Amino acid sequence: MMQVELLAVGTELLLGNILNSNAQYLSQQLSALGVGVYWHTVVGDNPTRLTQALEIAKRRADIIITTGGLGPTYDDMTKETICQVFGKELVCNEEAAAHLTHFFNNVIHVELTPNNLRQAELPLDCTVFDNPVGTAPGCAFCVDDTHVIMLPGPPHECNHMYHRHVVPYLQSLSDGVIVSHDIMTFGIGESLVEDRLQPWMGQLENPTLATYAKPTEVHLRATAKADTVAQAEEMLAPVIAHVEDVLGTYIYGIDVANLEQACVTALSHAGATLATAESCTGGQIAQRITAIPGASSVYRGGVVSYWSEVKASVLGVPQDLLDAHGAVSEEVACAMAQGACAITGATYGIATTGVAGPDKDDRGNDVGTVYVAIHTPNGTRCRKLELGNRPRARIQAMATSHAINTVRKAVERS
Amino acid sequence: MMQVELLAVGTELLLGNILNSNAQYLSQQLSALGVGVYWHTVVGDNPTRLTQALEIAKRRADIIITTGGLGPTYDDMTKETICQVFGKELVCNEEAAAHLTHFFNNVIHVELTPNNLRQAELPLDCTVFDNPVGTAPGCAFCVDDTHVIMLPGPPHECNHMYHRHVVPYLQSLSDGVIVSHDIMTFGIGESLVEDRLQPWMGQLENPTLATYAKPTEVHLRATAKADTVAQAEEMLAPVIAHVEDVLGTYIYGIDVANLEQACVTALSHAGATLATAESCTGGQIAQRITAIPGASSVYRGGVVSYWSEVKASVLGVPQDLLDAHGAVSEEVACAMAQGACAITGATYGIATTGVAGPDKDDRGNDVGTVYVAIHTPNGTRCRKLELGNRPRARIQAMATSHAINTVRKAVERS
Repeated sequence: MMQVELLAVGTELLLGNILNSNAQYLSQQLSALGVGVYWHTVVGDNPTRLTQALEIAKRRADIIITTGGLGPTYDDMTKETICQVFGKELVCNEEAAAHLTHFFNNVIHVELTPNNLRQAELPLDCTVFDNPVGTAPGCAFCVDDTHVIMLPGPPHECNHMYHRHVVPYLQSLSDGVIVSHDIMTFGIGESLVEDRLQPWMGQLENPTLATYAKPTEVHLRATAKADTVAQAEEMLAPVIAHVEDVLGTYIYGIDVANLEQACVTALSHAGATLATAESCTGGQIAQRITAIPGASSVYRGGVVSYWSEVKASVLGVPQDLLDAHGAVSEEVACAMAQGACAITGATYGIATTGVAGPDKDDRGNDVGTVYVAIHTPNGTRCRKLELGNRPRARIQAMATSHAINTVRKAVERS
Repeated sequence: MMQVELLAVGTELLLGNILNSNAQYLSQQLSALGVGVYWHTVVGDNPTRLTQALEIAKRRADIIITTGGLGPTYDDMTKETICQVFGKELVCNEEAAAHLTHFFNNVIHVELTPNNLRQAELPLDCTVFDNPVGTAPGCAFCVDDTHVIMLPGPPHECNHMYHRHVVPYLQSLSDGVIVSHDIMTFGIGESLVEDRLQPWMGQLENPTLATYAKPTEVHLRATAKADTVAQAEEMLAPVIAHVEDVLGTYIYGIDVANLEQACVTALSHAGATLATAESCTGGQIAQRITAIPGASSVYRGGVVSYWSEVKASVLGVPQDLLDAHGAVSEEVACAMAQGACAITGATYGIATTGVAGPDKDDRGNDVGTVYVAIHTPNGTRCRKLELGNRPRARIQAMATSHAINTVRKAVERS
């Protein structure tokens, strides 16, 4: 199997000014393709240390993917150094130069300086990767069975070029195709997922099935290698069907971006609308729902009723309920969900009230106690979560995910 | 100067399951201490490749800081491998074993297994770093002038141990102390900051001043090296005073965590309260404010009025304003801010309405057009932002920061 080293170049990474998110993104994508990443390395904009890092990578990796250092400034000496180490000549690439000239003259209407034109310099006899979302082109070449792939540093340019050029380049190196699907779950831990799917899962060879634990979710990725996409899909179907059988409603979607996307899609299919009434989640349910483009067709609005007075005056929670049970209670959560529907006219209302911490509330409720209530056309119900004495941000994020998942399930079942 | 290599151990990093955020955090902190990080390396849980990576690091670095691989599971062979490479014996550390036993028996009330006790194994003759926020202790030792520092992988344990143990350990290696302060700005770009502070800034040697561009902010860090903390502070004072003179109200705080913390602090000092009325930011202002512990003393609540009907029915925005000017207008933004105060009784009301994209709104307003209005005891005013055709998430985040900063400035000026 081909062994990949990811080599990021940039002093700003070593100063901690920016995060090496390209390494994570490329690692995820390459793993999904069945390509093994064995090393991540970061060095600064320093020719000596970059040369040493390249010599090390050349000895141990089959494919070196560099990110960063393709820009026009003096600091960016990545291309020169790579060419020296691999004995390539750095020349002005006519195609890249024409593209750059066009971009400066006709798109952004800025004068092209000789410095800018240095971005069109590429190793002689390389595969050029054009960059429609930026200015610096990337490239790939092979010397002595080592493939070198050079990508730009800005994450959106790097990601775009990966899908547009690197995937086809890597696939041209191997026979057949690799297809994968992501099975997205919420509400079940990684060890429980594995308990239910092992030993079957561990014995799979092609397709393979892997679990990925995210902060509040577990994702599974099924990957098949075959001669054609159709064959790969045929191999994947029974694996996915088995996982669906075993994990049931913990699965909120396949190849769906996230829980809030699944929720918005479910509401949209049902022709239903949503309103929110948030206390301890402080607007995070609304924020995650409205992060989805097109959310405005299903999300009417909501209230962040942080003070009890606002629960009463804006959401219409009866004052005697607040007095009798306190703000953190099943009764108040249900009244909040009903109130959200009443004032907005939405089909579904979701409400949270709880203790995000760091301290207990004035009625002695423990940190992590959260009530999630949903009002539907069929009535109102509430669930009590005990999320434990975790950090505030984590309790808010978990309660938000539970709330969004509660809506999704209610809508899908309706 | 001491040269540091950060070596992270973990297959989950190479699969892209988790982000190497420890590398960024430690790089930032070490740079602030004046310690140079020259390499980041990541290898998987594989003794052969870890051995090779350690041999490389030993040749080029003075200080190797490893993260990860200290847990109790079979995969975690970091300690064994490090001991082999540096010729140290791995032994059960009595102090660490006692701490672990106490933690299992008296804190979490879980039976201690022999596997758990492996976490108490440390190199003979090392400096033990206890871990009050987790179970695996860290350590440091020196062989042939190479310092090896082993830290746990979970970020909050790693960060905690860094400040508790690594900073004193590193300071014991050098004479004097290093003190730094962060000057936090919003609303001015990095190149403009540098324009205003250069060439003065570039000529500073001790203290130094560096800029850090964040997605929507620029931070500056002033760092001084001296014999005592008092001397360092005395050297820093005129540098900070000059930056304050030049950047004025772009500065929202010194050594403050973020904009929302500055806003909550300002409200708290003023004895004032806040309400939100959000359209295009979809709850993100509320979410960022309520992420701050103690926000409940100053934040009453808010409305996410995503549909126009909700702007009218819940916030009381007059229907004729909505009809005449459209939801994305100065008039509606001002009415929303006033409505937020009217229904919650808050001192200040902040409102946003705009087009987050990806498409223009039905009145033809461009993506990135956002009105931010504030209602204060002295009246209501509005500012129109043109954030450009950026991704939806970025427009929402930028509009949110502008809104929070608008509140901070209004409260501080009052």
